[in-house]
Amino acid sequence: MPETRVHRLLIAYQGGAFQGWQRQGQLPTVQFELERVAEKIWGAPVSVQGSGRTDTGVHALGQVASFVAEARIPDPFRLRMAFNDHLPPEVRVMDNDLGPDEFHARFSSTGKEYQYRIINREVMGPHEAGRAWHVPRPLDLAAMRESLSCLVGRHDFTSFASNPGYERTTMVRNMTDARLWERDGDIRVKFQADGFLYRMVRNLMGALAKVGLGKATPADFRAMLAARNRASAANTAPPGGLYLVRVLYPDDLAPPFSVPSAEPFTPNPPACP
Amino acid sequence: MPETRVHRLLIAYQGGAFQGWQRQGQLPTVQFELERVAEKIWGAPVSVQGSGRTDTGVHALGQVASFVAEARIPDPFRLRMAFNDHLPPEVRVMDNDLGPDEFHARFSSTGKEYQYRIINREVMGPHEAGRAWHVPRPLDLAAMRESLSCLVGRHDFTSFASNPGYERTTMVRNMTDARLWERDGDIRVKFQADGFLYRMVRNLMGALAKVGLGKATPADFRAMLAARNRASAANTAPPGGLYLVRVLYPDDLAPPFSVPSAEPFTPNPPACP
Repeated sequence: MPETRVHRLLIAYQGGAFQGWQRQGQLPTVQFELERVAEKIWGAPVSVQGSGRTDTGVHALGQVASFVAEARIPDPFRLRMAFNDHLPPEVRVMDNDLGPDEFHARFSSTGKEYQYRIINREVMGPHEAGRAWHVPRPLDLAAMRESLSCLVGRHDFTSFASNPGYERTTMVRNMTDARLWERDGDIRVKFQADGFLYRMVRNLMGALAKVGLGKATPADFRAMLAARNRASAANTAPPGGLYLVRVLYPDDLAPPFSVPSAEPFTPNPPACP
Repeated sequence: MPETRVHRLLIAYQGGAFQGWQRQGQLPTVQFELERVAEKIWGAPVSVQGSGRTDTGVHALGQVASFVAEARIPDPFRLRMAFNDHLPPEVRVMDNDLGPDEFHARFSSTGKEYQYRIINREVMGPHEAGRAWHVPRPLDLAAMRESLSCLVGRHDFTSFASNPGYERTTMVRNMTDARLWERDGDIRVKFQADGFLYRMVRNLMGALAKVGLGKATPADFRAMLAARNRASAANTAPPGGLYLVRVLYPDDLAPPFSVPSAEPFTPNPPACP
């Protein structure tokens, strides 16, 4: 029997074209498309594991997936081409390699980075439809930055989890970065943490927009977090503004993939009062 | 009877979401959507005229449209909002005003600017699907620039018109600009002329790609133009890479709309040998 290897893929996709990451029978999901093409290449079912799920409409620039299969096409370039020739253009294998045997896209991951995009202009251009949240009223960026700064560190994020019962263990996550950039009404908010609860970024963004619109203060935002109760927060930002940008791995397991820059504009660092 | 005025609109749209500009019964075209919403606002049919048609899949950043109707909502901001509230997000009224009585989006126009976008990288990201032409093989940009430079001036463009019988008068057009920019495999080609024949930009791009791929020389390209025969050229680039960027009007009739910059990168000016 030929030797099998761990294959690693860097995946990007347009969220609006799929019903999320996770396979659901024959529905057009990203995992389904990847497994369909892998089965075509290897002539047998292949189980493709992502670093985590994304919901319908949520985009990825730097999703990581892995699977075990023989190194049938040893040239990574040719394997990538074989995938891309058979995948719909809304999902692409951007990079790939063979990893160490102990690598698993999900279990090896030590954290993730998401970005959320808001277009804060009177009119959102047609090419941004489904790719950003259109918030036409002026946003108080200083108040939003202050709120974000208070998220950094270890916190119980129960207030921002849509389905608390879904988590089997702790609701505590370590947020290592939470910052906002703005240029000409194009707002990007970066969240980096050792893990995210269900819909956590979209729920954080819903609350953050309340602060930006003056319907809540940064102190209210801190109180929402401290309440450890989903009912204290409310509002979920739409999926089209959310991008999975990067999956983090320990140095000895990290694939050498280059992913898009995490800091599109010069940040304006805030401080938690 | 209330006084009627000429309304001018700056329109942007995602070409893939519509079956072109021109109304075809109840099919989802850009003109149909604008007339549907105008009829809702004015309570009577309104005929909305564009500067010209665009085919299915072709995008617009700076299409201009006009129509005659009473100035029922005098505040341009409020009228724009009324349109955008009822249009699908893939088409937007970006700006608008009341123009002089003699303005007509099509008949007043003195020229247009198009841009065509190629992604010249091994993999085209999923967010560019339908928004650029993916040409993975390396392109000879110097040869393409030389070919473009020879287009500037007055020429008979019969070789690049898909349907020569469609034009009622001359096939001569005055090309005032034809240039190429490139950055990290993102190629933009700008064409500005006093008018364009049917599918002219896509046909020019098909021939230009042949030059870039080394399947034709700049001299061949000049010979295609000189042949004044569609059969001499061949190849039509896909619609998703094409953008109507700007419509030109005489100074006294030009709407004061600001449209996206025409020169995304620093150009490398060529010279026709």
